[in-house]
Amino acid sequence: MKMEAFYSNNIKNAIQNDPPGEWMPYIPADCIRLSSGFPAPSLVPVKQLKESVGQLLDEEQDLPLHYLGTPKMDQLKQQIIERLDEREMKFAMEEVLVTAGACQAIDLIARIFIDEDTVVAVESPTYMEALEIFQNYTNSFMEIPIDEDGLQTEKLEDLLTERQGNGLPLPKVLYTIPTFHNPTGTTLTAERRTHLLKLATQFDFLIVEDDAYGDLYFDDQPTPLKVFDKDGRVLYLGSFSKVVAPGLRIGWVAATKEIIETLFWFKKDLDHPFAQAVMSTYLRDYPLKKQLSLLHKSYKEKCDSMIDALAKYMPDSVSWYVPRGGYFVWMKVPGEDTSKLLEQATQKGVSFLPGKYFFLNQQDGKEWLRLSFSYEEPTAIVDGVKKLSEII
Amino acid sequence: MKMEAFYSNNIKNAIQNDPPGEWMPYIPADCIRLSSGFPAPSLVPVKQLKESVGQLLDEEQDLPLHYLGTPKMDQLKQQIIERLDEREMKFAMEEVLVTAGACQAIDLIARIFIDEDTVVAVESPTYMEALEIFQNYTNSFMEIPIDEDGLQTEKLEDLLTERQGNGLPLPKVLYTIPTFHNPTGTTLTAERRTHLLKLATQFDFLIVEDDAYGDLYFDDQPTPLKVFDKDGRVLYLGSFSKVVAPGLRIGWVAATKEIIETLFWFKKDLDHPFAQAVMSTYLRDYPLKKQLSLLHKSYKEKCDSMIDALAKYMPDSVSWYVPRGGYFVWMKVPGEDTSKLLEQATQKGVSFLPGKYFFLNQQDGKEWLRLSFSYEEPTAIVDGVKKLSEII
Repeated sequence: MKMEAFYSNNIKNAIQNDPPGEWMPYIPADCIRLSSGFPAPSLVPVKQLKESVGQLLDEEQDLPLHYLGTPKMDQLKQQIIERLDEREMKFAMEEVLVTAGACQAIDLIARIFIDEDTVVAVESPTYMEALEIFQNYTNSFMEIPIDEDGLQTEKLEDLLTERQGNGLPLPKVLYTIPTFHNPTGTTLTAERRTHLLKLATQFDFLIVEDDAYGDLYFDDQPTPLKVFDKDGRVLYLGSFSKVVAPGLRIGWVAATKEIIETLFWFKKDLDHPFAQAVMSTYLRDYPLKKQLSLLHKSYKEKCDSMIDALAKYMPDSVSWYVPRGGYFVWMKVPGEDTSKLLEQATQKGVSFLPGKYFFLNQQDGKEWLRLSFSYEEPTAIVDGVKKLSEII
Repeated sequence: MKMEAFYSNNIKNAIQNDPPGEWMPYIPADCIRLSSGFPAPSLVPVKQLKESVGQLLDEEQDLPLHYLGTPKMDQLKQQIIERLDEREMKFAMEEVLVTAGACQAIDLIARIFIDEDTVVAVESPTYMEALEIFQNYTNSFMEIPIDEDGLQTEKLEDLLTERQGNGLPLPKVLYTIPTFHNPTGTTLTAERRTHLLKLATQFDFLIVEDDAYGDLYFDDQPTPLKVFDKDGRVLYLGSFSKVVAPGLRIGWVAATKEIIETLFWFKKDLDHPFAQAVMSTYLRDYPLKKQLSLLHKSYKEKCDSMIDALAKYMPDSVSWYVPRGGYFVWMKVPGEDTSKLLEQATQKGVSFLPGKYFFLNQQDGKEWLRLSFSYEEPTAIVDGVKKLSEII
């Protein structure tokens, strides 16, 4: 049978792209993993989550194992709302949707807003999984470069004005990670945040604010765009993946009631009650503040180790952005192809992610690479940076 | 802000329908629940699942709590393949996709095959959540009536021939629950299975075979359509929801490598490693055969209680189909509106689902209702049937 004739028009363009996940390079198991964008084993509260599952099943027996789940699903939403409230974001229950990680949120948002001719504005570089998901819906992107202060809103304004002048379609949605960005680790300045919101109103686009790393600050926590959102243009995405455990897949969208209702329309039959009930039990029984302060301390220490080692070992030509939170250091190796560098690095026993994966046009990332300090311990981080410096 | 202008064309039609889940009627908590289509609390292996979580986290620590999960995800696929093999269905690893319940499978299938003008053939009545999902993609349906022997393939042939004769578009996909159907409890006869496959080849459509209840047979297990599928037209859906626990959301699609690859394309970033690893551990540590024989015995006993009580208490005008497995008895109350009947029934302390929810045209289900014997114990089932008979 020829399948081609059966596929929907919705996906015919999408499957002309590279398949999702193809980007992932092979990393031998014995490397110091400066490539891994997930928490160190020692920072995942395994014991507590195990206790939480036990506690949940003792309390509620089979209830969380059914389709409809338990009151804990609403409690989880309430727990999320309380956390957002501490950060000056006020939401009602009907303004929050719990999703299977931020990825399901991005997919649902793409589904309700993006047709194959819709322009989506993204940072360049940006989170590759978000690119993958958006590319399942459209191939029309507007890329806005990032510098040390995050998305360059002046360039965004120029690009928008130019498109408008040329009668080209304007973006309907802008996807941004304004705080502790993946992969660059940068944070959008307060001035640029104000500017970005002004542009959204002026050029009438929605902002998807992915705040997955927002809780992982070293000294102080930037104020989310959502706090300054007057007319419901910002869809705020959060997640417990970086602060508790990615594998439980608990994220959320907070937005206007109308948007949440529409997202829920397409999500309703794809809920996951057990994971939500486990997370709610964990949050009730173990203060997240304690887990967060452990993470703050640990990631700051790891990041300091990495930055110190970079300063000590890297040649002068190499430069990097110093993050104020999150997981990542974004580094430039002028004149090098970081994909080729990765082959040498893994032979030497250290890994990173070549920059190209984070760009629509991979050529743009040739001289860049992403170092992650989230996974390895400080001594291994220093070792890894040293090994890497030796091959550069 | 006006959201309307922002919504994608993909969803503009969908959100003209009734919102998903709206159908769910209010059922007071103190009713005998002959409405609930999920397992009795005593049949969910809570203790074993709790042990499995503990065992998994002891063995693998933080691994199943990360994005990429553990080798247990492939093991789960292997375990599924072994189970299918016992039922004469041979699949390679790349011919199976694990999904978040059968619902995610249906959603992904709809996504890759259905545009807003695609005709989908469905049984009438059929599983309402499947209707909800398909209605998110199209409003063009072809309904094929069901009798005691399942989908009426002769009628299907007539309808297809008629459409073809009139130059109308033929369905691209037919969705069916051939074994222990929801809501009718019927099973497609062997002759009709052969006929259906012949029609699929002749009129060139795909078959989505939802076998969610296939393991819940009383005496013998019907052979799935997939076994006779020569040219890869059948997408076989299975699930652990009915045999282990719905809340873990573990289902699967088995189909050709090409279809699985395309489904995976849109699923890749929506995986759920922890739940998969828990299920795999449970299946390894607790023989499913034992759980299944418990279910066979229990559901047969419950079904017998229900059928005996119906025969004993219901007036002659009322008729029903006698199931050979699954969860449901489909009952006709001539001259009654079963939605109105539900109000009286819940006042009396018993619930069921009015038939109308299972039809695209709700009027078609007015005189029908679905009784479920899965949730309540035999004595409660008899009580419930008796109460119901008193108001009919």
